[in-house]
Amino acid sequence: MSKLDEALKEIKPVNPELMAGAQQRLDCLTKPKDSLGRLEEFARRMVAITGQMRPAVRKRIIFTFAADHGVADEGVSAFPKEVTRQMVLNFLGGGAGINVLARHAGAEVKVIDIGVDHEFDEADGLIRMKVVNGTANMRKGPAMTREEAEKCIEAGISLAREHAGPGVIFGTGEMGIANTTPASAMVSAFTGASVEDVTGRGTGIDDRTYETKLAVIKDALKMNRPDASDPLGVLAKVGGAEIAGIAGLIIGASAMRTPIVVDGFISTAGALCAYRMNPAVKDYIFASHNSVEKGHRIMLESMGLDPILDLNLRLGEGTGAALAMTIIEAGVKIYNEMATFGEAGVSEEKGQR
Amino acid sequence: MSKLDEALKEIKPVNPELMAGAQQRLDCLTKPKDSLGRLEEFARRMVAITGQMRPAVRKRIIFTFAADHGVADEGVSAFPKEVTRQMVLNFLGGGAGINVLARHAGAEVKVIDIGVDHEFDEADGLIRMKVVNGTANMRKGPAMTREEAEKCIEAGISLAREHAGPGVIFGTGEMGIANTTPASAMVSAFTGASVEDVTGRGTGIDDRTYETKLAVIKDALKMNRPDASDPLGVLAKVGGAEIAGIAGLIIGASAMRTPIVVDGFISTAGALCAYRMNPAVKDYIFASHNSVEKGHRIMLESMGLDPILDLNLRLGEGTGAALAMTIIEAGVKIYNEMATFGEAGVSEEKGQR
Repeated sequence: MSKLDEALKEIKPVNPELMAGAQQRLDCLTKPKDSLGRLEEFARRMVAITGQMRPAVRKRIIFTFAADHGVADEGVSAFPKEVTRQMVLNFLGGGAGINVLARHAGAEVKVIDIGVDHEFDEADGLIRMKVVNGTANMRKGPAMTREEAEKCIEAGISLAREHAGPGVIFGTGEMGIANTTPASAMVSAFTGASVEDVTGRGTGIDDRTYETKLAVIKDALKMNRPDASDPLGVLAKVGGAEIAGIAGLIIGASAMRTPIVVDGFISTAGALCAYRMNPAVKDYIFASHNSVEKGHRIMLESMGLDPILDLNLRLGEGTGAALAMTIIEAGVKIYNEMATFGEAGVSEEKGQR
Repeated sequence: MSKLDEALKEIKPVNPELMAGAQQRLDCLTKPKDSLGRLEEFARRMVAITGQMRPAVRKRIIFTFAADHGVADEGVSAFPKEVTRQMVLNFLGGGAGINVLARHAGAEVKVIDIGVDHEFDEADGLIRMKVVNGTANMRKGPAMTREEAEKCIEAGISLAREHAGPGVIFGTGEMGIANTTPASAMVSAFTGASVEDVTGRGTGIDDRTYETKLAVIKDALKMNRPDASDPLGVLAKVGGAEIAGIAGLIIGASAMRTPIVVDGFISTAGALCAYRMNPAVKDYIFASHNSVEKGHRIMLESMGLDPILDLNLRLGEGTGAALAMTIIEAGVKIYNEMATFGEAGVSEEKGQR
């Protein structure tokens, strides 16, 4: 059995009784019942995900997968392709958005070269797991072979297995110039939504470039005919190496019962792919935020995920995941640290009826 | 001139040129323009509020005002009145929701007895500024005299003046059994919205208690006839001591150019009162979250404030303010810590047109 099949088989839906048990404790804390809303939901879910009745967050890791895209040659982005490489160096130097927000959240950033069209020297914080030197141009044929796509997924699974452990929470992130183009193609392939409905302006493209982007995505879908019932095929044909890596990380995290905070549009395309392989991954995912990219909500709704934040973000890298992590952790602390009515000597609700 | 009039006169709208200057720096950072959405807004606003081109958050203080309400005698809450006192002790013991979330945010909690119907001993973290031993029952007459309401406001102003300083950010919070009842009455008085449209279930009351609550608010409005053009009168007639304290804290913070994060429904009633006294306070306010209490959004919209979080919270105490503070601080860090395109050697946007 392949690494991928093995991990997919390990993933089990969480036990709802664990959530009910957690709610019992939440209802004894000195606050009106349910008054901390989604913070209580996050605490319940952390109990169910980890199987620990007193879960803690002790280690936070953001995995930022970087890759290039052949389709960048079609002029679908506002930035030149070399920015993928340059931004990897910026991540390693600590000056990018994800570095700032990860520091704020107390998280470590691991940068994975899974498909950048450049040979990096060894560097602290860089994990070299290159599968492709950028994907092929999906307007002209499949972005990757099935084997390459599977290798990218397995890289993500390995990372999850290596870094999972008690008290660990993962976040996903990515960097890849032009990668909203394959992500939009994947959403359309998986959900059947029109290309127009799932394609946004990425880094901020003008009207002419947007028209080009729509045409390129339509051509790529026509050329490759991805089949929604074959998620690996969708990834290979119109996906990307970093998206496949993220799908793998999510699959691995779910197999290891490790909570995973999914960043924005691109990361969610990876999540959707993992979900189509085994819907139980949903139980291990926290949707960090609602991106400006309009295809994002369609994906989240198709998986029944409710984003934590809505701050008009559209940077990627893992920035939304880092921010949302702090809110999830707040929920866990509420659960662990608040006094009960008994402990604090506070009177409980009156019988009103 | 009274302390209140003096502070109101000091408040000036922020200078929009400072925001434009901040945006110039934001646009040089290694990210697509505007891609960090509201985080960029928070950074711009922090520059404009403080007048510092490189603002920092170094000290975070949540002021949790506690007070009792005569109207609790009408049976409008799910909790008995002694819970106000008990929760003050819980705050001082560090076991309440606000303690947990303030620790998470790196904030200090200051508890102000501004109107609890109990004499507290001196205690670390407790500020004794009692103006009333609970308000009078507003169903039967005014909750406070104008002089009492003004004294509560001035207590808030004094606190703001004492604690403001470079790098300081304030948050508001409150505790007062039955206080959604006066807050709803205030929203109706100020906005003209119907009592039904601004009255929620507070700590979680049942249908019969809810009907009572509606009747009590209607009676109080009929009895006291608050006049929206006289905000101090509204506060005195159908408000509360903690709500007045919060209004004062916001007025004082605005006079001192100190950012203030306003918590949920009750705190926003205080903010609305301050806003009706001088609309420029709005420039200094961050609306932390969108409460479950349905009158909340009506108030926020009437001031043109857009809440940062939407997590189905309805606890008060300052819990939403503590959480939102961490997000605002993230925006400030983005502004201060990200590398520019030049520093990082990253190529800027291509000319697309």
